[in-house]
Amino acid sequence: MFFHEPELQFEVTVDEPDPHFAKLLQQAIGGAEGEIRVAMQYMFQAWALPPEHEQFRNLLLETATEELGHIEMLASAVTEHLRGAPDDLLEEAYEAREHAAMAASMTGQTPRHLLSAGQSAMPIDSNGVPFDAGTIVASGNLAADLYANVMAESTGRLLATRLYELTDDPGMEEMLSYLIARDTMHQNQWLEALEALDDPVPVPASFPQEEENQDYNYTFISTRREPQPDPGLPWTEGDSPDSNGQFTYVPEQPGDGEVVAPEPAPQTYNDPDEREE
Amino acid sequence: MFFHEPELQFEVTVDEPDPHFAKLLQQAIGGAEGEIRVAMQYMFQAWALPPEHEQFRNLLLETATEELGHIEMLASAVTEHLRGAPDDLLEEAYEAREHAAMAASMTGQTPRHLLSAGQSAMPIDSNGVPFDAGTIVASGNLAADLYANVMAESTGRLLATRLYELTDDPGMEEMLSYLIARDTMHQNQWLEALEALDDPVPVPASFPQEEENQDYNYTFISTRREPQPDPGLPWTEGDSPDSNGQFTYVPEQPGDGEVVAPEPAPQTYNDPDEREE
Amino acid sequence: MFFHEPELQFEVTVDEPDPHFAKLLQQAIGGAEGEIRVAMQYMFQAWALPPEHEQFRNLLLETATEELGHIEMLASAVTEHLRGAPDDLLEEAYEAREHAAMAASMTGQTPRHLLSAGQSAMPIDSNGVPFDAGTIVASGNLAADLYANVMAESTGRLLATRLYELTDDPGMEEMLSYLIARDTMHQNQWLEALEALDDPVPVPASFPQEEENQDYNYTFISTRREPQPDPGLPWTEGDSPDSNGQFTYVPEQPGDGEVVAPEPAPQTYNDPDEREE
Amino acid sequence: MFFHEPELQFEVTVDEPDPHFAKLLQQAIGGAEGEIRVAMQYMFQAWALPPEHEQFRNLLLETATEELGHIEMLASAVTEHLRGAPDDLLEEAYEAREHAAMAASMTGQTPRHLLSAGQSAMPIDSNGVPFDAGTIVASGNLAADLYANVMAESTGRLLATRLYELTDDPGMEEMLSYLIARDTMHQNQWLEALEALDDPVPVPASFPQEEENQDYNYTFISTRREPQPDPGLPWTEGDSPDSNGQFTYVPEQPGDGEVVAPEPAPQTYNDPDEREE
Amino acid sequence: MFFHEPELQFEVTVDEPDPHFAKLLQQAIGGAEGEIRVAMQYMFQAWALPPEHEQFRNLLLETATEELGHIEMLASAVTEHLRGAPDDLLEEAYEAREHAAMAASMTGQTPRHLLSAGQSAMPIDSNGVPFDAGTIVASGNLAADLYANVMAESTGRLLATRLYELTDDPGMEEMLSYLIARDTMHQNQWLEALEALDDPVPVPASFPQEEENQDYNYTFISTRREPQPDPGLPWTEGDSPDSNGQFTYVPEQPGDGEVVAPEPAPQTYNDPDEREE
Amino acid sequence: MFFHEPELQFEVTVDEPDPHFAKLLQQAIGGAEGEIRVAMQYMFQAWALPPEHEQFRNLLLETATEELGHIEMLASAVTEHLRGAPDDLLEEAYEAREHAAMAASMTGQTPRHLLSAGQSAMPIDSNGVPFDAGTIVASGNLAADLYANVMAESTGRLLATRLYELTDDPGMEEMLSYLIARDTMHQNQWLEALEALDDPVPVPASFPQEEENQDYNYTFISTRREPQPDPGLPWTEGDSPDSNGQFTYVPEQPGDGEVVAPEPAPQTYNDPDEREE
Repeated sequence: MFFHEPELQFEVTVDEPDPHFAKLLQQAIGGAEGEIRVAMQYMFQAWALPPEHEQFRNLLLETATEELGHIEMLASAVTEHLRGAPDDLLEEAYEAREHAAMAASMTGQTPRHLLSAGQSAMPIDSNGVPFDAGTIVASGNLAADLYANVMAESTGRLLATRLYELTDDPGMEEMLSYLIARDTMHQNQWLEALEALDDPVPVPASFPQEEENQDYNYTFISTRREPQPDPGLPWTEGDSPDSNGQFTYVPEQPGDGEVVAPEPAPQTYNDPDEREE
Repeated sequence: MFFHEPELQFEVTVDEPDPHFAKLLQQAIGGAEGEIRVAMQYMFQAWALPPEHEQFRNLLLETATEELGHIEMLASAVTEHLRGAPDDLLEEAYEAREHAAMAASMTGQTPRHLLSAGQSAMPIDSNGVPFDAGTIVASGNLAADLYANVMAESTGRLLATRLYELTDDPGMEEMLSYLIARDTMHQNQWLEALEALDDPVPVPASFPQEEENQDYNYTFISTRREPQPDPGLPWTEGDSPDSNGQFTYVPEQPGDGEVVAPEPAPQTYNDPDEREE
Repeated sequence: MFFHEPELQFEVTVDEPDPHFAKLLQQAIGGAEGEIRVAMQYMFQAWALPPEHEQFRNLLLETATEELGHIEMLASAVTEHLRGAPDDLLEEAYEAREHAAMAASMTGQTPRHLLSAGQSAMPIDSNGVPFDAGTIVASGNLAADLYANVMAESTGRLLATRLYELTDDPGMEEMLSYLIARDTMHQNQWLEALEALDDPVPVPASFPQEEENQDYNYTFISTRREPQPDPGLPWTEGDSPDSNGQFTYVPEQPGDGEVVAPEPAPQTYNDPDEREE
Repeated sequence: MFFHEPELQFEVTVDEPDPHFAKLLQQAIGGAEGEIRVAMQYMFQAWALPPEHEQFRNLLLETATEELGHIEMLASAVTEHLRGAPDDLLEEAYEAREHAAMAASMTGQTPRHLLSAGQSAMPIDSNGVPFDAGTIVASGNLAADLYANVMAESTGRLLATRLYELTDDPGMEEMLSYLIARDTMHQNQWLEALEALDDPVPVPASFPQEEENQDYNYTFISTRREPQPDPGLPWTEGDSPDSNGQFTYVPEQPGDGEVVAPEPAPQTYNDPDEREE
Repeated sequence: MFFHEPELQFEVTVDEPDPHFAKLLQQAIGGAEGEIRVAMQYMFQAWALPPEHEQFRNLLLETATEELGHIEMLASAVTEHLRGAPDDLLEEAYEAREHAAMAASMTGQTPRHLLSAGQSAMPIDSNGVPFDAGTIVASGNLAADLYANVMAESTGRLLATRLYELTDDPGMEEMLSYLIARDTMHQNQWLEALEALDDPVPVPASFPQEEENQDYNYTFISTRREPQPDPGLPWTEGDSPDSNGQFTYVPEQPGDGEVVAPEPAPQTYNDPDEREE
Repeated sequence: MFFHEPELQFEVTVDEPDPHFAKLLQQAIGGAEGEIRVAMQYMFQAWALPPEHEQFRNLLLETATEELGHIEMLASAVTEHLRGAPDDLLEEAYEAREHAAMAASMTGQTPRHLLSAGQSAMPIDSNGVPFDAGTIVASGNLAADLYANVMAESTGRLLATRLYELTDDPGMEEMLSYLIARDTMHQNQWLEALEALDDPVPVPASFPQEEENQDYNYTFISTRREPQPDPGLPWTEGDSPDSNGQFTYVPEQPGDGEVVAPEPAPQTYNDPDEREE
């Protein structure tokens, strides 16, 4: 059950409104690296956990709830950037309206900010593509989910640092500095949660590993055209990180599998030629 | 530059053709956890790497090339499952064609296998949704990419083990046992590659961490309605996995941020009421 | 800023677990008529409103927050339906695993419930298609948004009543009875909010209506092949609902517009024939 | 059954070709507020209506047919804007082709206008995203559909007025003035059609309202963190618009629902840790 | 400008209503091989043609208009199949509503037919995925477009013949027999239109062919791992169909291209390791 | 089974890095006319072919393998364009970072190139939309597939020629000249393959043509509002290209089909009015 207070989780101010920066910020709202994705991802992951994982469930839901507040902060920033231009600039832009390019520049080249949303934030990414729920990972397996979360916070923090480099608006720097810090915390908490599991790798660790093919489970298979000697790299020799095997190297794929495509039913009309009667 | 030989990377046989299993296998071809995704993901990651990361570039491209062969193996299996039913069963199915339900059962309820593809594999997932390139992660930052790869191989192996439980066709068991083994290897190689980096966490490690907000970068912020005492969990106290901080706990979100949405330009016609003249 | 408590907004019990019903419930989570859509829609609408609309902003955000709790209730119900089958049935299903069709029946024919999510709720619709953020309407104009909300709660309540007819599980009936009641309230509150506006129709009412074409703004234009007499229907005669005009009828579209497509630049190579030198 | 004449429904002229405006117009063709959506929406709604609703069926189909003509008008305008630049400008643009930015400016930053379509209109929105059929609403229930249509014409008219502000090309002003007028008519006709129904609210009115939860069907439930007093707003007291209830207010969500996620089948391998043998 | 008459282009009767066949028919409405696609494709192609191609423009628009009527026929058939089950069967299905599987069987496993559309046709494909406007081809080049149309009518006719095999309802056989005939005509008319062009191949024929690489424009490049002898196939020797060249064969890809990825800007934080200060 | 060598199939150099051209090149990677599409299309087509079509299978797979190398070449070019700007320009761009517009110009207005990918190529089109696997055609019928391939190579070559006109970078001209040549070859080889089939038209030729409606299979049906005389065009008279019929002309659609939508089940609550008790 959720609650809401009409205040932002952290102060957001925009000193120098810039519609182009509004467009860039959209990536942090509706992009694959954005906050809608992690908020929904952590929720669905939490809701799949049975009672014995209650601490993880709470961890996930509390973080999801925090991310909802980040969407709100970013939406506030986007709208301020889109609307904050001084009146005389807007006036001028509209007076010059024979040049629709001006309108485009008012929106940093995301016309839907103006046309669909009246100069406000949208659930889209910085290229203007609506948020894609197909990027949400909630596998039912906590270890897989935690790696998905480390990844999500890694690309999320990477995005935030790239945005940080694209502004020197003090308000934006402060907001991004906060969001980058939160991503640092979240990366660390998911890594810590992974450590709290007993031997989670290879995921899923609960699968009886003796049922997997024992010839190729710690072997680097080269796909080079001509067989190459073992390069002696960390992933071709030595202990594997899951401590269950030793890396080896083979210069050739197993191969020799027979290519088979049985005849389809005649009623598929796959036959390209005219039927003889 | 790629090459191809007309043999499968590993033998694929289908002993008991089953169109329903064909549908399930599609998840491993065109699903978010599937082989098209990792093949393309590893390619685009590799192509972004500058010369000093040549070893990683090769690692990524060789693995991508192997995954292309997995798509081929799975496509072969799907088509065999769809077409392999004995002739008299097909005959019977078509004779009974007043019941289109029979056709549906011929395809395991993915009618497009029959209608669009003439009983063959497609670039779709097990729910019939076309492969979604929006799930591909290639961030330019090798550490973020490697975590994405650990995650991809984790959900990929999880999928393969779930499929393994849904068949006792010996040929399918052998194929899946091989693919599960390869995912074990790939998880381990990406983890090993992460270890080969110096201090990659928090990602991106190259961002000067002193520029992030120092009050909230190792702090668990509770989002509970009423303030709760520190639960003393691994993510609220002790050293952080990145070795750069100490976890702490605060029972309240910072809050107090002012909610602001400036007036939009009048020419957006956001005003819902009739204009007074 | 959001908060969360680990309890459901309203009690959810599943008396007779049924994976097929789980699949149907997904429409109320990730479908066009579902709760993710309204939760996000009301948030983005609220965040676009300037200070003078504070009461509407609060109304939207409080309702959005309630809808987040509905997603949680429905996700809980879906997971219970997917996992609640008695152990011996599952055992039997897995023992009979040479028939992957059995697995399909375990998931009500949404294999990703099993393959991608380990028998738990997902952000998809009942056809297995991921939630589509392109359905979210947040136009910046409150009147347009409120009509979008009346519509969303209309199709949402319609969906809930259809689901109600497809179960006689007492726990599901109680949950749906609650959700149907909330949709009744929400329809009414959005209609009431529309009434609180002064003359919002035609939307946007703030556009100077004298600038629209005065010959065709209250005229029903027939598109029938042969001109038909005025049928004397409520939309061809009498006062218009916005009180600004009188309906009239014309049997023919204006027509006569010249069809023009200028020559494209030669460098587009639109020319289909071989160029003469 | 449809017919077509080679003339536009209403005259379209472009006095000052502007590729940037072409891009903006795309929102009215392939956007969520555009003409493809309403044309298809009205058709599918009509085709679902049984004989006793013949008048509504005709109303829907005649309007759908008119909207097809609007797509044609807009496509004509887009192509004129894209191709109408004077030859010497094009020549200059191509001569300066070392600057691909010039090409981008030729298309108003929608490169596919040039690359995929040879300077002509496309079924995409102004952000370049293909038309999304997931936005089409045809519920089978006429009241729900009519509210969807009021909404569609509201956002459609809003879009047209915003476009109107972004041009002072006389031809475009005339075309948009006509389209705005038609949206006025269409909003009014759908509202009139709603009035022609007997008590359509709450939608679906045919559901026996006594089966919905009677404690929460006219109650505003606050989701604030701390209980707040009844604000005495139109949606917390007084008669409801459907005339079936009285608004009331409660400061707390019902709550107390137990959070349950049963154990998944072991064969899902949801268990994140290594299995003990 | 379009017109509509309330009659179907060709009679549609359903003798034996079957919701499973309704689902299959959806592929012909909203699938990649379906009628929405060709209707819109032919329109956008036509609207791009300049005056000298008026005959082709008319050909395209008349065919598009016919296809609109096919959508209507198919939608009518789908709705009849979904609703036509005898009352006692429905009654029984609903009485047995504790088995939601029954509801699924009522819809041929496309729950949205019932939940979203009240047992009526939708703009989706047979897998339940909304129509995808990204499949529409309108390139501006008439020859490319005509090949796209031959392909569309080929896959369309293939679909129709496959559907024909899945029913022995006399009404459906008659409808499909008509649609198959129309696809025969349309394939032939597009091929005829191609013949009416002068030397359209290679498309675009207007590009000065001497500017393309002259070493590889009629050469089959083998991508086999080991060089293979020329197989002497129709595409490795003899005249090319465009009459502009002679096929040749080379056993190796040119190769030797240098792999380059310059250093990214440091502000992208692509560097995966901690920065040394 | 695939192999890879770390060299490009053909040399790629970028003399004048231009982020705007990078954006345009994305269409050739992830667009509907691009290389990911054809690579995957040819693979899935090949994998559907039974043994007697082995020569076609090899032809398809060898070409698919070549296209994989084209993706690699184009990705290399895109990354070079994005990163190749001289250091001082980058420095200047970042110093001027209060203007996020500068960042946009660094990416040619595809912010995700910078934000999501750290200045590298992505599996998206030039409008920033992820690659859409719904565009892949692999029908199971070789003739339909070959026409799809002619079309794909036609729009692909058209795209490449349009790109060629938008640059005078010598390296880009050479790369495009090579890709245009390959598309010439591929168009010709698919046309040659079609010629190698016996009478493939109308596709599918294996359907017994006497089962299609014999009144309308070679008849042009006019959809004009008023009956028009036979225009005497190549598609209204004379032999059809498939040599199976004679074109004829009728001025009217058959028509007269009865419009029927049976009553839906009452439990759909399609009824819009309040139920009388």
